[in-house]
Amino acid sequence: MGVVVSLDEKKNTTGSVQPLVDLTKADMGRVNELILSKAGSDVEMIPEVANHLISSGGKRLRPMITLAAARMFGYQGDGHVKLATSVEFMHTATLLHDDVVDESDLRRGKSTARMIWGNQASVLVGDFLLGQAFKMMVDVGSLDALDVLATSASIIAEGEVMQLAAAKNLETTEDEYLAVIKAKTAALFSAAAEVGPIIAAASRTDRQALRSYGLNLGLAFQLVDDALDYGGNAKDLGKNTGDDFREGKITLPVVLTYRRGTSEERHFWKEALENGANDDKGLEKAKGLMTLYGALNDTIQRARHFGGIARDALAPLDRSPEKDALLEVIDFCISRVN
Amino acid sequence: MGVVVSLDEKKNTTGSVQPLVDLTKADMGRVNELILSKAGSDVEMIPEVANHLISSGGKRLRPMITLAAARMFGYQGDGHVKLATSVEFMHTATLLHDDVVDESDLRRGKSTARMIWGNQASVLVGDFLLGQAFKMMVDVGSLDALDVLATSASIIAEGEVMQLAAAKNLETTEDEYLAVIKAKTAALFSAAAEVGPIIAAASRTDRQALRSYGLNLGLAFQLVDDALDYGGNAKDLGKNTGDDFREGKITLPVVLTYRRGTSEERHFWKEALENGANDDKGLEKAKGLMTLYGALNDTIQRARHFGGIARDALAPLDRSPEKDALLEVIDFCISRVN
Repeated sequence: MGVVVSLDEKKNTTGSVQPLVDLTKADMGRVNELILSKAGSDVEMIPEVANHLISSGGKRLRPMITLAAARMFGYQGDGHVKLATSVEFMHTATLLHDDVVDESDLRRGKSTARMIWGNQASVLVGDFLLGQAFKMMVDVGSLDALDVLATSASIIAEGEVMQLAAAKNLETTEDEYLAVIKAKTAALFSAAAEVGPIIAAASRTDRQALRSYGLNLGLAFQLVDDALDYGGNAKDLGKNTGDDFREGKITLPVVLTYRRGTSEERHFWKEALENGANDDKGLEKAKGLMTLYGALNDTIQRARHFGGIARDALAPLDRSPEKDALLEVIDFCISRVN
Repeated sequence: MGVVVSLDEKKNTTGSVQPLVDLTKADMGRVNELILSKAGSDVEMIPEVANHLISSGGKRLRPMITLAAARMFGYQGDGHVKLATSVEFMHTATLLHDDVVDESDLRRGKSTARMIWGNQASVLVGDFLLGQAFKMMVDVGSLDALDVLATSASIIAEGEVMQLAAAKNLETTEDEYLAVIKAKTAALFSAAAEVGPIIAAASRTDRQALRSYGLNLGLAFQLVDDALDYGGNAKDLGKNTGDDFREGKITLPVVLTYRRGTSEERHFWKEALENGANDDKGLEKAKGLMTLYGALNDTIQRARHFGGIARDALAPLDRSPEKDALLEVIDFCISRVN
């Protein structure tokens, strides 16, 4: 498939999440136990809905980052396990609400919770997980960590509303798009990374380094995700290729292709994304235009740009297995496209 | 109207919210300022949606309770204003999500946010307000207050899911109904009251007194609300009478009337609430059966029972203007039916 090949050509790094997985294995075992226990409730529907999403095979990148970022600065307690679980619950709650907002049918190749239990259960179980997340944070007792995570919760919601307001508006600029993904995706990566040094009582500089790492990794991650939505297939990605197209989402590949196109092509985009002419034939045409204008490659190029900033954010820190693993994750996020 | 008259006959207390309003007037001015400021965002849709609900004429009972409960124990700082605002935001977020879950068209006689801006904005702005609420709590810096409020957030969501699972199930028992309203309504009243003595560094006994007051006041409040849904009119209540009936909600008036009825009447209820035969004629018949079996009066009687417990919870405390005002609120909540 042309689009995929064109991404392949740009492959110049390989990265793996494996070192991070190995390093955090024992701690992630405790996170997984805590997830199951805190998603429990006498109200049957709650663990059913929660476990549907929790067990659906996400990589749990965010909690692993929290764990590594705490260990990196010598943290010895068990607060990092609770904070990592809180981060994953915040993420899960966001996914549950997102699927309702986006009216998504599939996530990672499985029916979304809202398709099985309805929008109502998805909204409410999301709220429950958010409440449980805050309880765990309170339990850890660090007001600084609470502040960072509560702030990110507000920012994420703000980003989602921003995205909703920008939906189906093809005049969205690259800057506006970046503001959306910074809020809706990068803010949680940033908070997940920053709470590590916070509970390890690391320095202000260390906090800033991890915050910047998380923020820029999150931007790179989302950019690649948005490129993948036009360049892979549902089986590989565990998501529907073309979801963003069908939902009329304005992502960077679209922004670039629209801006670079002819007025006739811009008419096509308006019909497709603003007026719902978004069938499979439309999707193929969209992919063709993206290839023509190099929009997917340039989206990945932008991801590399932020990946580089994430790398430099960690540069001054002493070498450690955690640092190495976190650096590999940057390449992993970007090389997912291959 | 027969139903209203039958409630009138039981009138034996009058209460007013006015003493509480007067006592908390200055502090509530600051709460209202903080509400406007913290519901603000550069993302235009957020203040629009938030202010629609915030300005829709709710009594703000919950934040006033927090303010009075803090002052009652001599609190002199400004944390109570932030906690009161957090409590109101948690309540507003719940309403936004509830309207989506219940598919409600009207609230307090106005179109719901979801009818104007859509379900999506209601879900996301609710999430934003919840995030802002937690940020303000963190700002106050009391981990005990955070714990109480975060716990209530989980419990509220759990109660809503419980209600969703029990929806349209006429075999719901009174105990199950009580468990739902304890979680979805009383938990926030309880937390709103308890955080007052917490930030005032009052004794454990004082905390327990206020927690019990809030919990039982909340139960009484919800019971009366559920009776009013079958016994007033939209203009008086600022809500649609019969909303619960049309939404197939199983509230205590229904539970009692169903259990006390003939098998033919139980068939009527099943058709109406489980199978959607819930037009205006059905509503009139429902009201008639409730009057026949004394279900509305008995629902109010239950409310009086919990009101009495709330009253006794405060009994050991020294007399103060705040205590007097909080006691009057109990009677006010119950005498709303007249």
